[in-house]
Amino acid sequence: MTVHTDVPARERGQTDAPAPERVSHAGEEEKRRKARYPGRQTWAAWPAYDAAGLGFRGYWYPVAWSSNVAAGRPVRITLCGENIVLVRDSKGLHALYDRCPHRGVPLSTGTQEFDGSISCPYHGWTFDTSTGRLGAVITDGPDSPICGKVSVATYPVEELLNLVWVYMGVDGEEPTPLLDQIPEELRGVSFNLGGRIKVRRGDWRLTCENGFDEGHAKFLHRNAMWRRFKSMPVWNVTKLEQRGRWLFRVQTEQHWTAEFPGYGSWPPERESRWRIKPSADGTQSISNTGNPKAPHPHIAAQDYPGFVSVSMPGVLRVVYPDFIHYEFYVPYDADHHRYVGLMVNFDSGFRSLLFKAKYLGFVRWFFHGLFAAQDAWMVDETDAPPERLYRPDVSLTTWRSMCEDAAEERTARLNPTA
Amino acid sequence: MTVHTDVPARERGQTDAPAPERVSHAGEEEKRRKARYPGRQTWAAWPAYDAAGLGFRGYWYPVAWSSNVAAGRPVRITLCGENIVLVRDSKGLHALYDRCPHRGVPLSTGTQEFDGSISCPYHGWTFDTSTGRLGAVITDGPDSPICGKVSVATYPVEELLNLVWVYMGVDGEEPTPLLDQIPEELRGVSFNLGGRIKVRRGDWRLTCENGFDEGHAKFLHRNAMWRRFKSMPVWNVTKLEQRGRWLFRVQTEQHWTAEFPGYGSWPPERESRWRIKPSADGTQSISNTGNPKAPHPHIAAQDYPGFVSVSMPGVLRVVYPDFIHYEFYVPYDADHHRYVGLMVNFDSGFRSLLFKAKYLGFVRWFFHGLFAAQDAWMVDETDAPPERLYRPDVSLTTWRSMCEDAAEERTARLNPTA
Amino acid sequence: MTVHTDVPARERGQTDAPAPERVSHAGEEEKRRKARYPGRQTWAAWPAYDAAGLGFRGYWYPVAWSSNVAAGRPVRITLCGENIVLVRDSKGLHALYDRCPHRGVPLSTGTQEFDGSISCPYHGWTFDTSTGRLGAVITDGPDSPICGKVSVATYPVEELLNLVWVYMGVDGEEPTPLLDQIPEELRGVSFNLGGRIKVRRGDWRLTCENGFDEGHAKFLHRNAMWRRFKSMPVWNVTKLEQRGRWLFRVQTEQHWTAEFPGYGSWPPERESRWRIKPSADGTQSISNTGNPKAPHPHIAAQDYPGFVSVSMPGVLRVVYPDFIHYEFYVPYDADHHRYVGLMVNFDSGFRSLLFKAKYLGFVRWFFHGLFAAQDAWMVDETDAPPERLYRPDVSLTTWRSMCEDAAEERTARLNPTA
Repeated sequence: MTVHTDVPARERGQTDAPAPERVSHAGEEEKRRKARYPGRQTWAAWPAYDAAGLGFRGYWYPVAWSSNVAAGRPVRITLCGENIVLVRDSKGLHALYDRCPHRGVPLSTGTQEFDGSISCPYHGWTFDTSTGRLGAVITDGPDSPICGKVSVATYPVEELLNLVWVYMGVDGEEPTPLLDQIPEELRGVSFNLGGRIKVRRGDWRLTCENGFDEGHAKFLHRNAMWRRFKSMPVWNVTKLEQRGRWLFRVQTEQHWTAEFPGYGSWPPERESRWRIKPSADGTQSISNTGNPKAPHPHIAAQDYPGFVSVSMPGVLRVVYPDFIHYEFYVPYDADHHRYVGLMVNFDSGFRSLLFKAKYLGFVRWFFHGLFAAQDAWMVDETDAPPERLYRPDVSLTTWRSMCEDAAEERTARLNPTA
Repeated sequence: MTVHTDVPARERGQTDAPAPERVSHAGEEEKRRKARYPGRQTWAAWPAYDAAGLGFRGYWYPVAWSSNVAAGRPVRITLCGENIVLVRDSKGLHALYDRCPHRGVPLSTGTQEFDGSISCPYHGWTFDTSTGRLGAVITDGPDSPICGKVSVATYPVEELLNLVWVYMGVDGEEPTPLLDQIPEELRGVSFNLGGRIKVRRGDWRLTCENGFDEGHAKFLHRNAMWRRFKSMPVWNVTKLEQRGRWLFRVQTEQHWTAEFPGYGSWPPERESRWRIKPSADGTQSISNTGNPKAPHPHIAAQDYPGFVSVSMPGVLRVVYPDFIHYEFYVPYDADHHRYVGLMVNFDSGFRSLLFKAKYLGFVRWFFHGLFAAQDAWMVDETDAPPERLYRPDVSLTTWRSMCEDAAEERTARLNPTA
Repeated sequence: MTVHTDVPARERGQTDAPAPERVSHAGEEEKRRKARYPGRQTWAAWPAYDAAGLGFRGYWYPVAWSSNVAAGRPVRITLCGENIVLVRDSKGLHALYDRCPHRGVPLSTGTQEFDGSISCPYHGWTFDTSTGRLGAVITDGPDSPICGKVSVATYPVEELLNLVWVYMGVDGEEPTPLLDQIPEELRGVSFNLGGRIKVRRGDWRLTCENGFDEGHAKFLHRNAMWRRFKSMPVWNVTKLEQRGRWLFRVQTEQHWTAEFPGYGSWPPERESRWRIKPSADGTQSISNTGNPKAPHPHIAAQDYPGFVSVSMPGVLRVVYPDFIHYEFYVPYDADHHRYVGLMVNFDSGFRSLLFKAKYLGFVRWFFHGLFAAQDAWMVDETDAPPERLYRPDVSLTTWRSMCEDAAEERTARLNPTA
């Protein structure tokens, strides 16, 4: 006998408003359900986005640290719902579809018997890592007639920023240059880099929306150690501004306290006491914390209209005076995404050592760890659609529309006559 | 590689009587299956009961100890398949549908930022605890235009017997008075109370049937410590008697030993040796153990026709000379129920201390613990319907019919013109 | 918040070759999928085999060690998807369908209240172990009118080789003699026996195919301790030969090294260094390891054409000079099989003690343990069909056809007029 503790199960829509037991009908149920969720509830207005739970095709995705893929040690990853094996040998780094066509055993469980190849552990089917072609079958001898008649799919793969990037296109599609997808401010300059990679629950869209979401940070994260001693606004007035492929949130008003009718003022005094106050004259830096610190010259030179921006296929950029934080929300499967969090600093010499110390001693723990865990918690709890959006969610709807435009543009490009 | 030990899976109906491999047809399979389960097998004769896996609507249900719902600590419960958050503040105790309409995050994960409200942890949507109305959105400022346009459902909630009770009706239904649902013998008197609340496997119906079931107790529980030194009948002749909303099992014959043709006598001597024998003259008390002890005057005054009775919406009452035991089988979800076991004693003064000592030192462990665990085990193993009932199951069929009558009466009342 | 590590999920066919997001159609998807899996992919050519995931009917299956079924201790097993209780009493060993018809509780959770019967723990329904007939209902008294009107199915059960065997036929089918199904070389002789029984993942067909598979052993197991110091061929030329109900793999060529064009020679020197070399003159024993040892006279007398053979309903025989190893792949449920591994040696006197010492000290650990675990690993990873077979898989296709023939023959026998 197992007794369950009172852990709540996910709610079930159909139980929201049951009819008297004898007269319940599915149609009635549906109407009642709609009545309980007024307003725009579905993602039907963004059909490509709605269908993109496994990610958008036609992009490079970071999937692993380069240093974690060693020769002789094939690594299995999942990207956009596909299982892929990464193999390093004398000819470079390769990505192949991770399924031996013989009996379906993952090649990632195999070994590299000959340089330039990977062998399935079951019967020694040996595939050329560059082409995916079946080059030898150890247990069928040198004259095995099946050689050359079978192959596994390969994926374009490159390395940059100490990351392995895989291009997910459609059959026969030529990949775009990887550099085109790297944030512009990182090209042609040197910088310091720290980061974390984790597979987390929730599809990439919910976590990307969490990242770009105008409303949540100042409330959800208000007591995270990363923000505990800084002020954050109670609410902002925000407009959205697109520059090239980046969509910026631009805050035209920031309100550091507010008086809510019928309830009282917020934040409570006890929560504000230990925080650094925003400067009295309203001067502040690119960040959203009332901190008037001047940004690094390279960051200042970018002239960003806002401190948070997002771009396809799910990349967030958050600009601070001293560094830039990136989050890549990489599609894993229908229920998970791969979180790739990077912190980049443009200092050099002694100051670059300071950054590294700060990253390892503090940022990695408080920001890429605890702060990001609050986001992961909310993404896991989110159960949308249905949803009921509010004023700051213009950040989400504009982002969704930008995805929609990009998907339409790509479809038109790949199917010019359609 | 994982190797499973030989844990038996639940049987699968379609494998009962397989045809030769090539000639199996679904229809044939169905016929063979029926042939193997003769007699009444389904609950089709009780359609409202058959559909009530998530409970009957129109009743108050106990869901938590009052003392476990503290101000500032929202509690999530599940009742009849719905997730509900209990919130206590200066205005009292409240029950709201536990889903923020914005993005589906449970309000029970939030905080009470202002008295009289609960705020979603994600974006600070703040709902009035009395009305469920969205009263403020912290991250959208005091002039948020969405305030007052959105609300979450609320549920009638009251406290009695140190329990929180929630009324599950249908939309707009006025709750019945909670007191009408409290067992009559507990109104207007003082008493001592002990109890246990647990979420257990099996829907509320199977566990309620287990409780009222005429046949199982004397066999299943015969060696439970709670009964180890008392005699229980081998079999009874039973009739059912309804008084008001209570259905009683009335034992017209009790047989303490029996001789089974072809098998022998039962119980075996080794099992009876240490038990208190029933009194030679047949005198016995309200209980079913051959104990001739006179009942407490308040219990005697009730003049119960039998020692076990049941009432809608799934409440069991078992009467002993010294105390009355209640079990509320509260619908949780399709696979679980909440067991609320109470023990009530009507003594006062020093004797009430004795009861408390007895409850905490003995009853809670042997009865509300071990004895109840045998029932929970059987409920978990039960796999019915299909079922094949026997003579003592008149207790179950009469109970199901009583549920059916109550559901019909309520439907007629709510839909007078239908 | 739960963070998942990067454990790869099983691939999902529908993601193999996604179309541009807007123009995906199920039919297109299917075509692309087929294009990726060329050649014979399904088991449609063997329809009886394809449908036999829960095993073939009309056979005896070993399910437990005799010594593990003691009087008074009913044992639950699952066979061909059916739950069965084994009961031993003064009348012998019995097998009954493990479900009380009353409320579905497994009889295996019950007790043996009277010799010759088993009683359900819930209400004491007592079934005759020989006939399955309901003989008494303890909680309904000696005159219970349901007695004799209800019964549970029984199964033919016998004991041989210290194993319990259950016959799985169809309703009313007379079992074949168990001895007919015991390997011929074990009849009428004395021998020493050691073995292991385990429930493992994967249906019985995948694990039987793994066992008889010509190709895998010399590659997959090359570094198992069981083979670590013996040579195994790189590849063989094999033909299949059926003798009676046994299908033999006959190796007409053995190649101990090979040179693969474009890749090099195999096995690598480092892997071969410590192995016993095959005899220079090609002399070798029945085994596949280049060992020229002469077989035991009883084994030699069988004049087996090959060292590995298989028979219905999933029995593997591997012949070594000193002993014979058997694997029975017993259908459990759709995702599991019961592995029954036996090792038989025909020595007597002091040499039989030597065998027992060798089995317990070495064979049971290295062969029935570690070596078999490599097979279990591959069976668990196998994801077929779809599949793409190669030359050595003639062993599998011939075996499947033999199953097909046996199923057709049996269907014709049971349905002579059809």
